[in-house]
Amino acid sequence: MAKLAVPPLLSLRHFLVLSIALNVSLILRTVYYESEKGSKGFCLNKKMMADADSDREGHLIHKSRLAMSSTSSLVNSTRADHPGGRETVINLDHGDPTIYERFWRQVGDKTTIIIPGWQSLSYFSDGSNICWFLETEFAREVVRLHKVVGNAVTEGRHIVVGTGSSQLILAALYALSSPDAAEPISVVSAAPYYSSYPSMADYQKSGLYKWAGDAENFDKEGPYIELVTSPNNPDGHRRKAMVNRSQGQFIHDLAYYWPQYTPISSPSDHDLTLFTVSKTTGHAGMRIGWAIVKDKEVAKKMTKFIEISTIGVSKDSQLRAAKVLKAVSDSCEQENSQDGESFFTHSYNIMAQRWKQLRAVVEAGDLFTLPQFSPAFCTFFGQETEPQPAFIWLKCEGDIEDCESLLREHKIVARSGRHFGASPKYVRISMLDTDETFIQLIDRLSAIQQGK
Amino acid sequence: MAKLAVPPLLSLRHFLVLSIALNVSLILRTVYYESEKGSKGFCLNKKMMADADSDREGHLIHKSRLAMSSTSSLVNSTRADHPGGRETVINLDHGDPTIYERFWRQVGDKTTIIIPGWQSLSYFSDGSNICWFLETEFAREVVRLHKVVGNAVTEGRHIVVGTGSSQLILAALYALSSPDAAEPISVVSAAPYYSSYPSMADYQKSGLYKWAGDAENFDKEGPYIELVTSPNNPDGHRRKAMVNRSQGQFIHDLAYYWPQYTPISSPSDHDLTLFTVSKTTGHAGMRIGWAIVKDKEVAKKMTKFIEISTIGVSKDSQLRAAKVLKAVSDSCEQENSQDGESFFTHSYNIMAQRWKQLRAVVEAGDLFTLPQFSPAFCTFFGQETEPQPAFIWLKCEGDIEDCESLLREHKIVARSGRHFGASPKYVRISMLDTDETFIQLIDRLSAIQQGK
Repeated sequence: MAKLAVPPLLSLRHFLVLSIALNVSLILRTVYYESEKGSKGFCLNKKMMADADSDREGHLIHKSRLAMSSTSSLVNSTRADHPGGRETVINLDHGDPTIYERFWRQVGDKTTIIIPGWQSLSYFSDGSNICWFLETEFAREVVRLHKVVGNAVTEGRHIVVGTGSSQLILAALYALSSPDAAEPISVVSAAPYYSSYPSMADYQKSGLYKWAGDAENFDKEGPYIELVTSPNNPDGHRRKAMVNRSQGQFIHDLAYYWPQYTPISSPSDHDLTLFTVSKTTGHAGMRIGWAIVKDKEVAKKMTKFIEISTIGVSKDSQLRAAKVLKAVSDSCEQENSQDGESFFTHSYNIMAQRWKQLRAVVEAGDLFTLPQFSPAFCTFFGQETEPQPAFIWLKCEGDIEDCESLLREHKIVARSGRHFGASPKYVRISMLDTDETFIQLIDRLSAIQQGK
Repeated sequence: MAKLAVPPLLSLRHFLVLSIALNVSLILRTVYYESEKGSKGFCLNKKMMADADSDREGHLIHKSRLAMSSTSSLVNSTRADHPGGRETVINLDHGDPTIYERFWRQVGDKTTIIIPGWQSLSYFSDGSNICWFLETEFAREVVRLHKVVGNAVTEGRHIVVGTGSSQLILAALYALSSPDAAEPISVVSAAPYYSSYPSMADYQKSGLYKWAGDAENFDKEGPYIELVTSPNNPDGHRRKAMVNRSQGQFIHDLAYYWPQYTPISSPSDHDLTLFTVSKTTGHAGMRIGWAIVKDKEVAKKMTKFIEISTIGVSKDSQLRAAKVLKAVSDSCEQENSQDGESFFTHSYNIMAQRWKQLRAVVEAGDLFTLPQFSPAFCTFFGQETEPQPAFIWLKCEGDIEDCESLLREHKIVARSGRHFGASPKYVRISMLDTDETFIQLIDRLSAIQQGK
């Protein structure tokens, strides 16, 4: 066998030069990738180990995690002398869910989405689906997440995607009303109800449906639509339909039926149920919601509504939402006691910490009161948990008739109870803002109590 | 000076091992990046050189480019024996703009967007803007593109972003009508009008506005809203307001006022003008449109409409649209005769090629006729160009009364003239589909003409 007679030293030198050249090329390539990613993403090097203990129904049990707070930075930084001081107006009128930003920063690249310029040009996602603009990947992750969390039945149902759950509420009103009816169908919800329901029902002066106020006082004969929000916005209580008559149709708005806000008791199973990414994961900027619909014709009419009003729903946001929901499901399935916590453990712990601080401040005086909730067994966490709503439904006691004005004097913008069909002695305050804003809120509520 | 006494051979070996180890590490890293990107992006290595010749108004002159067709692949592949044959139904009912996919693939990474999971959580984009959910970057690129193309005045106007221009049409109807009016305001458009206008105006049975049909026959006294679509969908003709009475308000839908479809004569300057990314660049899946609004109160009311109906517009798609519009403006400013063509040169050339083929086929028989257009000076291209609409407004001549049915027999799905307030002797056929579908269309029209 012939042997190639290459001088060993020269050969090594050659190899070295070649190897170094390759080094340089690869380093340049890596630098390119990094610069392309810029400050937009960073890697999470700690891999979560998938050793979660799951119960018989596939729901994850994270008993040990719930006791551990991930919000030590929040606790430590609660102080009256924070930057910004008491002169800055803090706006907690909206439920802007920036609370979860820290979690998503920690997760890093896993939820970074890359969309090339030539993708998703078409109006269509899946022409064979009733909801022809629904991205298959998004629908798959919605179904998976409900299975992981155990908060909704999805088998044999139709998924309709919307530009936030707002569009789906309107689509549902359209789908459940009849163009041939002699008069608009009444739309009701039990007070205190979500403050946008009246304007959503009436802003178009629609001949199809019409806001008819508090469900408790509704006594008109004939067909009606009841909006059932559970847990309720603004007061956080679990709800069932209030008007139980034969010609009722129901829209179940379950935006807050997630483990960080309320114990998951069983999978919801209604005719028409709405959820939204905004409240589930905090991605309000995506404007993505979804409906779970039993009746095919209702799903068709809702799809038609979205076709006429916006010719579908942003594919970019659907794809991004799919990635985020996947990360949530993955985090639940991979959670262990050492390396990482699931999104819901993280968010439950933050909410628990905030509610603890809030109750401590409110109970230190007699000016304000809060709703009282009973703990209940949560099938997701496999233990009793506390309801800890996304909003504070704060009541001013004694002779204070206008709670909104009182808070405004102390530079807290909140929404008066009047907008929710309730007394102005109440206000709704968001619990989902940044740590800094929440600390300022606690500080100011404390100051008001102390008459400062 | 002390010299390190390392045996040279050993040193080289060490370096080699080190270097190889580094290579392995870097290759793994590169593989990771590539797998992360998957098939979603690729690099364009040819940089466009910025040596475009610009005229005094800053518009680019690309005389030499327009004569050069970039659609040779299309021309060469026109044949009757293509895969799929005449048995497949081709659906050209919608104006799904997949025609531009090739361009966006060629552009490669430039328009790839990367969004990390923690970005755009909030509902808000810019609280100081009337349109508080408008992404600043998107607004900037809208203004820049109109300046580059010269098709709209933006100085001193308000930009309102919408979930496609559909939502903006509805927002405009809402903004221009009065909740206190005794009866709904009449909405008119000259026939043939965009087939969705009647259902958009009436699907909610709104008490604010009501479809009142063909503008030409409109003789009711009092206030009205006229939808002016120019170039017109379906027939491609340039339009001005038809009803010119004192109480008229106008929505100018200029979705097709771009250089690939019609000569740009001057910057449009109306009270309320609508555009959409779907038709400008072909990104229909983004669902992004924009309004240019003179009156502050109208902009406010439009914003309110979008707040109530969808609480804003997908931030992901706004950011992606900003990147795509930027690439279009860049391609115009950097166009040169050797290295690259601008988006509009590319798209003009494809449209020119398609219209040439279409006219050749139609004029070969006497069964069909097409609208006739006159060329005009285009300020963007700096030369005379032909109108080449996004839709074919095809007329069946002779005793064929139902053109839609005739085409359907030959497995072409088109939209009957009836939907546009016109005769069923007409159909609207999309010109914006893929090359393959367009070739099939040409082939089938030719076969129909030949009585096959």
